[in-house]
Amino acid sequence: MREYFENVSKINYEGANSKNPYSFKYYNPDEIIGDKAMKEHLRFALSYWHTLTATGADPFGVGTMIRPWDSETNEMDLAKARMEAAFELMDKLNIEYFCFHDRDIAPEGKTLQETNKNLDEIVALCKSLMKKYNKKLLWGTANCFTNPRYVHGAGTSCNADVFAYAAAQIKKAIEITKELDGENYVFWGGREGYETLLNTDMGLELDNFARLLQMAVDYAKEIGFTGQFLIEPKPKEPTKHQYDFDTATVLGFLKNYNLDKYFKVNIEANHATLAQHTFQHELHFARINNFLGSIDANQGDPLLGWDTDQFPTNIYDATLAMYEILKNGGIAPGGVNFDSKVRRASFEKEDLFLAYIAGMDTFAKGLRVAYKLLENGDLEDFIKEKYSSFTQGIGKEIVEGKVGFKELEAYALNNNPIINKSGRQELLESIVNQYIFEDHK
Amino acid sequence: MREYFENVSKINYEGANSKNPYSFKYYNPDEIIGDKAMKEHLRFALSYWHTLTATGADPFGVGTMIRPWDSETNEMDLAKARMEAAFELMDKLNIEYFCFHDRDIAPEGKTLQETNKNLDEIVALCKSLMKKYNKKLLWGTANCFTNPRYVHGAGTSCNADVFAYAAAQIKKAIEITKELDGENYVFWGGREGYETLLNTDMGLELDNFARLLQMAVDYAKEIGFTGQFLIEPKPKEPTKHQYDFDTATVLGFLKNYNLDKYFKVNIEANHATLAQHTFQHELHFARINNFLGSIDANQGDPLLGWDTDQFPTNIYDATLAMYEILKNGGIAPGGVNFDSKVRRASFEKEDLFLAYIAGMDTFAKGLRVAYKLLENGDLEDFIKEKYSSFTQGIGKEIVEGKVGFKELEAYALNNNPIINKSGRQELLESIVNQYIFEDHK
Amino acid sequence: MREYFENVSKINYEGANSKNPYSFKYYNPDEIIGDKAMKEHLRFALSYWHTLTATGADPFGVGTMIRPWDSETNEMDLAKARMEAAFELMDKLNIEYFCFHDRDIAPEGKTLQETNKNLDEIVALCKSLMKKYNKKLLWGTANCFTNPRYVHGAGTSCNADVFAYAAAQIKKAIEITKELDGENYVFWGGREGYETLLNTDMGLELDNFARLLQMAVDYAKEIGFTGQFLIEPKPKEPTKHQYDFDTATVLGFLKNYNLDKYFKVNIEANHATLAQHTFQHELHFARINNFLGSIDANQGDPLLGWDTDQFPTNIYDATLAMYEILKNGGIAPGGVNFDSKVRRASFEKEDLFLAYIAGMDTFAKGLRVAYKLLENGDLEDFIKEKYSSFTQGIGKEIVEGKVGFKELEAYALNNNPIINKSGRQELLESIVNQYIFEDHK
Amino acid sequence: MREYFENVSKINYEGANSKNPYSFKYYNPDEIIGDKAMKEHLRFALSYWHTLTATGADPFGVGTMIRPWDSETNEMDLAKARMEAAFELMDKLNIEYFCFHDRDIAPEGKTLQETNKNLDEIVALCKSLMKKYNKKLLWGTANCFTNPRYVHGAGTSCNADVFAYAAAQIKKAIEITKELDGENYVFWGGREGYETLLNTDMGLELDNFARLLQMAVDYAKEIGFTGQFLIEPKPKEPTKHQYDFDTATVLGFLKNYNLDKYFKVNIEANHATLAQHTFQHELHFARINNFLGSIDANQGDPLLGWDTDQFPTNIYDATLAMYEILKNGGIAPGGVNFDSKVRRASFEKEDLFLAYIAGMDTFAKGLRVAYKLLENGDLEDFIKEKYSSFTQGIGKEIVEGKVGFKELEAYALNNNPIINKSGRQELLESIVNQYIFEDHK
Repeated sequence: MREYFENVSKINYEGANSKNPYSFKYYNPDEIIGDKAMKEHLRFALSYWHTLTATGADPFGVGTMIRPWDSETNEMDLAKARMEAAFELMDKLNIEYFCFHDRDIAPEGKTLQETNKNLDEIVALCKSLMKKYNKKLLWGTANCFTNPRYVHGAGTSCNADVFAYAAAQIKKAIEITKELDGENYVFWGGREGYETLLNTDMGLELDNFARLLQMAVDYAKEIGFTGQFLIEPKPKEPTKHQYDFDTATVLGFLKNYNLDKYFKVNIEANHATLAQHTFQHELHFARINNFLGSIDANQGDPLLGWDTDQFPTNIYDATLAMYEILKNGGIAPGGVNFDSKVRRASFEKEDLFLAYIAGMDTFAKGLRVAYKLLENGDLEDFIKEKYSSFTQGIGKEIVEGKVGFKELEAYALNNNPIINKSGRQELLESIVNQYIFEDHK
Repeated sequence: MREYFENVSKINYEGANSKNPYSFKYYNPDEIIGDKAMKEHLRFALSYWHTLTATGADPFGVGTMIRPWDSETNEMDLAKARMEAAFELMDKLNIEYFCFHDRDIAPEGKTLQETNKNLDEIVALCKSLMKKYNKKLLWGTANCFTNPRYVHGAGTSCNADVFAYAAAQIKKAIEITKELDGENYVFWGGREGYETLLNTDMGLELDNFARLLQMAVDYAKEIGFTGQFLIEPKPKEPTKHQYDFDTATVLGFLKNYNLDKYFKVNIEANHATLAQHTFQHELHFARINNFLGSIDANQGDPLLGWDTDQFPTNIYDATLAMYEILKNGGIAPGGVNFDSKVRRASFEKEDLFLAYIAGMDTFAKGLRVAYKLLENGDLEDFIKEKYSSFTQGIGKEIVEGKVGFKELEAYALNNNPIINKSGRQELLESIVNQYIFEDHK
Repeated sequence: MREYFENVSKINYEGANSKNPYSFKYYNPDEIIGDKAMKEHLRFALSYWHTLTATGADPFGVGTMIRPWDSETNEMDLAKARMEAAFELMDKLNIEYFCFHDRDIAPEGKTLQETNKNLDEIVALCKSLMKKYNKKLLWGTANCFTNPRYVHGAGTSCNADVFAYAAAQIKKAIEITKELDGENYVFWGGREGYETLLNTDMGLELDNFARLLQMAVDYAKEIGFTGQFLIEPKPKEPTKHQYDFDTATVLGFLKNYNLDKYFKVNIEANHATLAQHTFQHELHFARINNFLGSIDANQGDPLLGWDTDQFPTNIYDATLAMYEILKNGGIAPGGVNFDSKVRRASFEKEDLFLAYIAGMDTFAKGLRVAYKLLENGDLEDFIKEKYSSFTQGIGKEIVEGKVGFKELEAYALNNNPIINKSGRQELLESIVNQYIFEDHK
Repeated sequence: MREYFENVSKINYEGANSKNPYSFKYYNPDEIIGDKAMKEHLRFALSYWHTLTATGADPFGVGTMIRPWDSETNEMDLAKARMEAAFELMDKLNIEYFCFHDRDIAPEGKTLQETNKNLDEIVALCKSLMKKYNKKLLWGTANCFTNPRYVHGAGTSCNADVFAYAAAQIKKAIEITKELDGENYVFWGGREGYETLLNTDMGLELDNFARLLQMAVDYAKEIGFTGQFLIEPKPKEPTKHQYDFDTATVLGFLKNYNLDKYFKVNIEANHATLAQHTFQHELHFARINNFLGSIDANQGDPLLGWDTDQFPTNIYDATLAMYEILKNGGIAPGGVNFDSKVRRASFEKEDLFLAYIAGMDTFAKGLRVAYKLLENGDLEDFIKEKYSSFTQGIGKEIVEGKVGFKELEAYALNNNPIINKSGRQELLESIVNQYIFEDHK
């Protein structure tokens, strides 16, 4: 088996002062933070699509990426080369998990039969490489948005033949995820939405989407797939409106169709901001509703209106994400998947390493900061005090359901004046800064 | 009783060719459209706050509005003058309904007792004027966001004393709404959200908000208030994040707390766009989930990021809103409330008339267009045909739950090729245009 | 020569009541509006890229378009088939002009020499077809953004070899534009911007871009190309920041480098809104600065943050655009180029016709409305009166430069009170609506 | 003279490890960084309006701020109390400069004469306090947007009487700025823009605005005011469109009216992001065009569409801003003015200190990081290498104007293949992170 990135050796932890760009400054996989090693907190995953198959094409230009497998001309040979390279990358980058769509790893054939055969061949190779390198599948999924047949959606297509095809494709994707011991299975509804309401029956589309998810639940049960099902919210793009708009929308959808006990959410940072939420907001909302499943770590440009999927280097976002994850008691069986792509102008193969290091170090630093912040309790103590009126007196009675409007009116009529306390936002932001600037000591 | 707008006479329908700015060109209240009169379709309401109490102040400037009640110096006299003027406006504009917040109609006193006394006095005046002018209350609500006590929210405040005060205020607001035979009661959670997650316990806040709503439900039952409860979604502003982000979020919240059988939504156009949805989207989503309650008719500037609450003059939005309302079987007991304010530079009292006429005529035209569009079936027929594959064969089996992944895979493996049909968006947009340009004939 | 769209006949004007989707309802090319025929007012152009070469691919999916030239496998044969089809479309749609990028019409070869040879061959075909069908070239341009060599920009690349290549490419593109009697030549700087300031020398890049434009001016003079040079502003996409952000930015750039006498702007509606301006704003600003050159007619989705390039069907935008064009004394030698693409789901070849009809009819209706509005003077008279204080007294002295701070202070100290008048925005919006709803009569 | 903030002592530098919230962790005023002390690099200024007169009111609520001068009932006594408190704040916070609008410091009287008299009285007090505390005026300005007379703008009003009044007001504001040895004078055109083009003559408005600025230049010359004139760009809010949209627009405007030698820009971070630019972008653009004058330090919420004017705590923005300022050779005679307001929920008087500390420490840390980054040359060296092709060979000839299209074509035809290098965005972002996390050592 050839070496694809022969210029780059295994990336080691060299600490914050290292000048070597091909080193981790903050990510020390086996270092214990609290109750477990950094790698167990972070459960980093490589995204197959952005890393192995992306070309750098954008709506105004063709691909720019220079890749060591560019010389492969046969589709299956190319698929195999990429699979080998994926494991070399995971190995050198010390990444334990990976994620893929069915069509990332094997080419579509002329028929569904042929496509499934291609998949089986590559899955076998994948399985052997997983064993060899001791790597694991965080999640699998089906790409039901690239092929023209999905022009009107998959589970929400107006065409029943397309729905049937999607069902067949997802069935197979669940099977291979199970075959590879995948810990989760993700639904990202790339075209499950609409372009214009002028030609859309949203009610039928939502009902059908729920039907598709229920079939997946039923089939998983039948074949004994016990991985966690995840839905990945995104508000728009490629469609004008995507049904899984954000975590709150997904919660409502799941409750509406009695699917909430089977699904959690896979939250992507850039999707959160496209929906006008912070990444932390989505994580916090999912956490308190007990359906935080996994995360797609990346970042958008706050001044751009599309999914840029940049490698995450913003320490605020990483810190607050890890804060929520720590409060969640960890992210397992989910993980931190880098749904991130190197910039179109970062087209050299070394950039893949530099970009993953950037993202991994940012999350590692974020974990360090978040852990200390939580351990020291600066924010938690403030919040506890801020809401303390609900742990006693009238507040306690409200929380315990002992009072109604009449009792509260009686109380309010005799409670003057009301004294509020400052929310201290600026101080709290300063404190977070101080932890970020000082943490590594 | 004095006349406040002595320069403006009753506004009459003069038809599309009228050059008189103080006339309706499209709104002919008693004209029958389909099964009922235009006024019954539209159920127009005047918004007390924007019309009677707004000053034209904005974050960078003080009030500009010149109003005939400016000379009143005593707060209660001012409140009475405004109430009289409100009915003169409704009368002259042929508006049957109005909506108010408790604090719009009567000034806050030094104590809650005094505040409630003020309210009672004005409510009595209001009731007599309603009878005199034959006008109705579409909905009442409580303003739980202007007073500094609500700096951290009302039902979601961190301060139990504030929660209690809000409960007392809402109790009274429901009582006066009942007293005035209000057909609905609205919750707009102006500060029910957060400014920063660094100091927020979202879980407790959401639980408390649900507790408040449940208390309202219980109290309404107790006193026999049978009006419809409504929640008005808004994503942000004044707070950074508002919990009732959009209709989908509200649906999830209601289901989560088993409140869904008691609440519908009051959808505001400008709130929809701030949440990155079209007005029609929010109406459509509410309609198919059976919780479309009422609408706040206005429009935002798509290039501005705050709630501009402009009078609605965009015919596309009005047409598609009325289309959804017609498909909903009407909006009653809700209505079309103009939650719209004259521009700060439209400060003359005549502008109030010109603005309401602009909004009413736009919705009247929208109703006319929507009705013909629906009657002729151009869109409905297209949609029916587009989704027809789900009424027969494999599609019918999917909808009826007779097939699962295995049956669908078997079908898909033998179903080649799949043929999709064009969505025809451009044609459908052309058709809508043609109805708009031609409708009045 | 084959017929590519054999199912669609020549599109005729059938008037507003026509139920035939393959007809013009508002566009009657030879109808006189004011001083000239509709076709002379509108100078419609077909965009070669969106119409002939676009596939419907987006960042999440491959092409969907079904085109009659799909069967061509040889690149030059394909180029020829598209060229023939383009003229068939223009002929059937009654479009007099077209626009292209060099790489739209002919494939890139292995060397620049070969590429230029391909171009020459297709240009010859194009020239003969122009003669045969009596069609004209509105403008030509060079595609300096798709090829990977332009990854860091063209005129603003950090690589001098790329600058040189771009210069060579633009030289040739100007030559072929001249060969085809093109009336304008456009610069759209697709990648003339930056991705991150961390690696950018904006000063050098702007200087170099100005150098490139000056070279174009010099070369045009040398070869006697007398077409108008145009710059097309766009704020972002594909790059994070594009130097030609909007018309105001372009004006400053041109003045800064003394290029303002050689360039006008080609304003695209969707680019305007991405820059947070209305289309009318950009046209108005260009008009009053005497550098309104041509327009790219399309529309964006106000709720989406990328360039959707939809066919323009919004009557407000079309009306106000034509209003500015009429006030500009017309758009010639520019025109109304449909830089618009059929939706990805409108993939049938008939959709090309339906979409162009949608756009052409919308602009034709817009012209009709704008013309009457301007002729009747409703807006103009209002504005004239609104600013009348500057035509007499102290206002006149201000405008004529006869007074300074001291004189104005003396005036102000003795001028009480100041009386302002309402801006009447709502009334004016109503009036525009009335013209739109009533115009065709 | 009373002490207003008796609970807070002078704020001292205690270093990064301090747990005392009322201390500087990064700002050590007299510490030398490179060629000068931190205070000389930063030239911090207190904003009078946000700090002394703001109430915490927003469009949905009245003021919340609890201030030690709340008990003053006489307007002039209140103005004096605020002035005294301002100097106490500057003294305790170690802030050397301040900025104000005329109406911040003294109340408007019944006539312009009375208003000017009020101003003179407060200016005299201010002057004595400046001497006593050794504080300086960074800039003065006139508030020409709050009063209803400015409803249609000031220099761009449709009413010549308003233009005259604005001229008189600005005349006086320049005089008092001179009286207080102000180092700059700022124009922020709060309402110099439009609400709707339907009633706007943009050409006249822009001409008039230029006339007003020219009068200011002339008058300054006449009275010997030698401070720098500054224009502060903002794209919108309160008006729909503001003429000084961004730095690029201002550059074009100044060039268009030959005002560019008299004006520089005062760049506000939150205004930059509202215009869809990063703060660094605006600073960089101003720097390379030699018109970077001063900055308004604050930050917006990237997910909100209005001017939140938060205290700046984002280290990335502060670092990159200071980077540009260092490359500019410093910001003098401008400074770093905190055009920032405490959050509405940070209503206690202590929050003023905590917020200024947050902002000052963030910029101090940013200065430290930027200085080391620049000193070590990580970014500069990368950029130098990236553009090195323009310092030799064909690139040098391009820059020196020795070649045109023909020479470049000849070169390009024989230059194969073109090799580009990666832009390394991810690596550069990692490096910036490392400097932020490690700098204070």
